[in-house]
Amino acid sequence: MKGTLIASLLFLTAFSAAFSQAKQPRQSAESNPVVVEKGLIKVSIMYPYAEGKTFNMEYYETKHMPMVAGFLGSNLVKYTIEKGLASGIPNQPLPFMAIGTFYVKNISDYQAAIGPNRDAIRADFPNYTNTTPVILVSEVVK
Amino acid sequence: MKGTLIASLLFLTAFSAAFSQAKQPRQSAESNPVVVEKGLIKVSIMYPYAEGKTFNMEYYETKHMPMVAGFLGSNLVKYTIEKGLASGIPNQPLPFMAIGTFYVKNISDYQAAIGPNRDAIRADFPNYTNTTPVILVSEVVK
Repeated sequence: MKGTLIASLLFLTAFSAAFSQAKQPRQSAESNPVVVEKGLIKVSIMYPYAEGKTFNMEYYETKHMPMVAGFLGSNLVKYTIEKGLASGIPNQPLPFMAIGTFYVKNISDYQAAIGPNRDAIRADFPNYTNTTPVILVSEVVK
Repeated sequence: MKGTLIASLLFLTAFSAAFSQAKQPRQSAESNPVVVEKGLIKVSIMYPYAEGKTFNMEYYETKHMPMVAGFLGSNLVKYTIEKGLASGIPNQPLPFMAIGTFYVKNISDYQAAIGPNRDAIRADFPNYTNTTPVILVSEVVK
């Protein structure tokens, strides 16, 4: 009876360790974040390029993205910023000038956190761009 | 004279260690890859959604992406696959059904590796999709 209890506890501990390993970010020995991305939700804010459209990366990186990240709390696993360089297809225009991506644990908490702050976020757009973003919600498969 | 030589060697070693740390993936104690993404080049192959367009994720993940990754050699740091779920803007259509992304150290080696295999890559498209991808080359800023 006692043996069964101990075996059950060991099983539960192993199971919860495996689960938390799959779902949560970890710190390596060098305190570099090790993020298991598979299964996370990505919210990618993509800024299309077109003639006359501008994008201030310095403002976006130092002001806008940290502000939005601050709204997301512990649901936010990490966020990334990329700068568009070129189309990968010769003689095609650059598709996007920049993409900012939030990796979150679930989309409903993301929406609940963004909702009350949507006006503040949109009001900040003219401080760094005159283009309207496309937003993709996706799931990391690999 | 000998002291100067040793100091120079130490400096060079420290410099090259710092450089390789910034540019190359590392393994953590748990053999989970710790990739320093900043500064890497992303090649993102984005499959737009439209009515009647299809995408076979299983084939893409198990056949197409491993084939292309195999062409890239040590220039490839990692690759990811994401599945489009929704637009992040209410009442807007899904922008992309799927995105495959190669994180590489430099774009010229990527192009040199893909060039001779372009026909084989394109010939595989109909095996998983009937949409034409948009390809973005970008630089990881953060």
